[in-house]
Amino acid sequence: VIDLSDAFRLRERAGEAVYGLSERYRDALRAARLVANPGCYPTAALLALLPLAEFAGGLRQLIVDAKSGVTGAGRTPATATLFAEADGDVRAYGLTGHRHQAEIEQELRAAGITAPLVFTPHVVPLRRGLLADCYAYFERAPDEDALRAAYLQAYGASPFVRLLPPERAPNLPALAGGNGVELHVTRNGHVVRTLAALDNLGKGAAGQALQNLNLMLGFPEERALDDRALVV
Amino acid sequence: VIDLSDAFRLRERAGEAVYGLSERYRDALRAARLVANPGCYPTAALLALLPLAEFAGGLRQLIVDAKSGVTGAGRTPATATLFAEADGDVRAYGLTGHRHQAEIEQELRAAGITAPLVFTPHVVPLRRGLLADCYAYFERAPDEDALRAAYLQAYGASPFVRLLPPERAPNLPALAGGNGVELHVTRNGHVVRTLAALDNLGKGAAGQALQNLNLMLGFPEERALDDRALVV
Amino acid sequence: VIDLSDAFRLRERAGEAVYGLSERYRDALRAARLVANPGCYPTAALLALLPLAEFAGGLRQLIVDAKSGVTGAGRTPATATLFAEADGDVRAYGLTGHRHQAEIEQELRAAGITAPLVFTPHVVPLRRGLLADCYAYFERAPDEDALRAAYLQAYGASPFVRLLPPERAPNLPALAGGNGVELHVTRNGHVVRTLAALDNLGKGAAGQALQNLNLMLGFPEERALDDRALVV
Amino acid sequence: VIDLSDAFRLRERAGEAVYGLSERYRDALRAARLVANPGCYPTAALLALLPLAEFAGGLRQLIVDAKSGVTGAGRTPATATLFAEADGDVRAYGLTGHRHQAEIEQELRAAGITAPLVFTPHVVPLRRGLLADCYAYFERAPDEDALRAAYLQAYGASPFVRLLPPERAPNLPALAGGNGVELHVTRNGHVVRTLAALDNLGKGAAGQALQNLNLMLGFPEERALDDRALVV
Repeated sequence: VIDLSDAFRLRERAGEAVYGLSERYRDALRAARLVANPGCYPTAALLALLPLAEFAGGLRQLIVDAKSGVTGAGRTPATATLFAEADGDVRAYGLTGHRHQAEIEQELRAAGITAPLVFTPHVVPLRRGLLADCYAYFERAPDEDALRAAYLQAYGASPFVRLLPPERAPNLPALAGGNGVELHVTRNGHVVRTLAALDNLGKGAAGQALQNLNLMLGFPEERALDDRALVV
Repeated sequence: VIDLSDAFRLRERAGEAVYGLSERYRDALRAARLVANPGCYPTAALLALLPLAEFAGGLRQLIVDAKSGVTGAGRTPATATLFAEADGDVRAYGLTGHRHQAEIEQELRAAGITAPLVFTPHVVPLRRGLLADCYAYFERAPDEDALRAAYLQAYGASPFVRLLPPERAPNLPALAGGNGVELHVTRNGHVVRTLAALDNLGKGAAGQALQNLNLMLGFPEERALDDRALVV
Repeated sequence: VIDLSDAFRLRERAGEAVYGLSERYRDALRAARLVANPGCYPTAALLALLPLAEFAGGLRQLIVDAKSGVTGAGRTPATATLFAEADGDVRAYGLTGHRHQAEIEQELRAAGITAPLVFTPHVVPLRRGLLADCYAYFERAPDEDALRAAYLQAYGASPFVRLLPPERAPNLPALAGGNGVELHVTRNGHVVRTLAALDNLGKGAAGQALQNLNLMLGFPEERALDDRALVV
Repeated sequence: VIDLSDAFRLRERAGEAVYGLSERYRDALRAARLVANPGCYPTAALLALLPLAEFAGGLRQLIVDAKSGVTGAGRTPATATLFAEADGDVRAYGLTGHRHQAEIEQELRAAGITAPLVFTPHVVPLRRGLLADCYAYFERAPDEDALRAAYLQAYGASPFVRLLPPERAPNLPALAGGNGVELHVTRNGHVVRTLAALDNLGKGAAGQALQNLNLMLGFPEERALDDRALVV
């Protein structure tokens, strides 16, 4: 069973469920019977931040400023997601607390990252796509070579996660309809800035569910995901 | 009382209500106690077509192909008007009948225009604005001078209706937030094509209600409407 | 050679070029060495109207009211296609003549349809997609059974053209990224209304070019087109 | 003279020009003959961050994550601002340096804020509007009462800057067409997060120019700005 709700994501309620962040729990997912598929915000934020675990000792603060397409709010009719409300607006929300923050923090801590997190989600007027700008403030930040090595170590064998060269910004339309993730990492003094881009309905939802299904069944990880799904 | 619903628009249920198409029923509106404010589609279609009444003898067919911003469907949450459904789409609807067709036909007939009408409404991905392309097929169409004279006769004294020169197409953004209407009329052989553009929330709804209020109270017709309202 | 420009579309300049409307010139395309690939407006209008050729004797007037996504204007930077100009607008253009009208008329006449045509193109704020509402005014219109039979006769063997049931409107997002065409035909008194929907970058451009390539090379017509292309 | 270009914004080239951030240089602007009107990004970032000057001793890092409507790039035709490129995308840019960063840093330093700045601008698919999420990391952050007092001290007498209550997020559409600024300030542990929202074409450009003109001429600051300008 792969559960896309948040019923089993927090460990206090997880039971035997494995958290379905494929690149992080690949081995456990191969043996799982119940998978708690992550939300789109946690998927982007965690893929961006988890490779910093080896530098966690000097990490003082995390900030995640995320921008999500309107479908992140689901398809149930609501005033806030009407065309006439969402078009022409960029809307910060959850300014006093967002339900996905605990999910992000839980997984950061499980990886040894205990620095506090400020999380600001936004709705932007596009159908699909999510960009998370993640800022990590260090007492002394790792240099770019060490950073790049850490991200390559984390994702070099992962077919869906691509580390961009510094001069290339993430490209949401090119990710739409697929299971891909683009990461862009730079160091600016004390701050490591990592941008993570994905399709909130792909890698942020159904795509990752299919990736996890492949792991559970012993299939190649990219089966039926090696091309972009249809985009509606 | 000015009623913006469709409760009193059809004459069989109108009672003492005056149909609130300001330019057509200006005198009656001055004496009205109850006004049935028209819908946005009928306002655009009727302003475009009523000046053809004097040529009605040779008129064989009317076609109205209308494009409305999403707010034309109101603000009640519904799947069809969600951002993720309306963005990226141009959607014809009511292909087997639309509730505003009877309202248009009633007023055409009251003016002596009995040619049959085909009406095709569409939703387009913009918040506000309505463009109605109206095609009138004649056995022998009036020439452009006669046409122009008929439209100037109908609207020359109307502060909100502007007849465009042939080389200028209607401009929806310039009408947004106001009570203005732009008309563009040409003859192409047997066909007189009249485009009518307005803001469906302005002249197509609240703006015309205010214009009617001015008429009812003996105020100048353009009071509080001589500048564009705020646009959200 | 398949030429996507308009260099060879008009017969006076075509030389040996075959007009690349696949469903109409399938046999000639199989033997062609040079193909003049049609524009997106003509593709939609002609697929909608050509099946009416057998009723051409009673046909008096044609009207094509077409709505195209912004990419119909190409990718060369221009003020009119800037986001800030196209967003929030539905813009009629070519009101005094459009360069694709001659292409449509030429092919209608080649099929024996000589009724005059009024053509009104519009730009709508979506990236891709084209909807052409085509109205044919008849002295006496064919009944719906005869109409349906004519369209099935024309496209029953065509893998990309689908005749919709009356209760289903065309769906542009579902066609995005593919080579499909949806047609919706009804009779309303003297008027046959046919809606044609397609992706202006798919069947309206590169998709049809690939379809023609398949015909030229003796491949199955739907090769590499049996699924939707990637959508950017 | 009020100059909207960046010719006089940096002090090394300013000559007698006064930097036109109205709320900061109100007195100098009253006597100015040449005003260097700020860019939209600096206006938002500086209004958000300057009230933190009194706490600058404990400030360690600044991060500005800004989202701008497409008109921020001007109206000169360019591929990146075409509808088909900007629609459906949220695009980080200037990842290796942005020309407005020096302008922001100069004014921060002039106010005694010397903490380093990471600045990430984004283009979002809306015509107008700018939201800057500004994060200030402190060794020990001021408490919310002190923060609120500092912002009220800075803007209590300013007619265009409004400090929102914690439960109200900034609302870009409500600011469109006007000269208003909404600020939302909270403390989250070590981080003070200040969101600043404005219309990039209003307070971020022509609106602020008019505000400065009022100051220069001794008019009331809000003359001709007390209502929203027309929105196209």
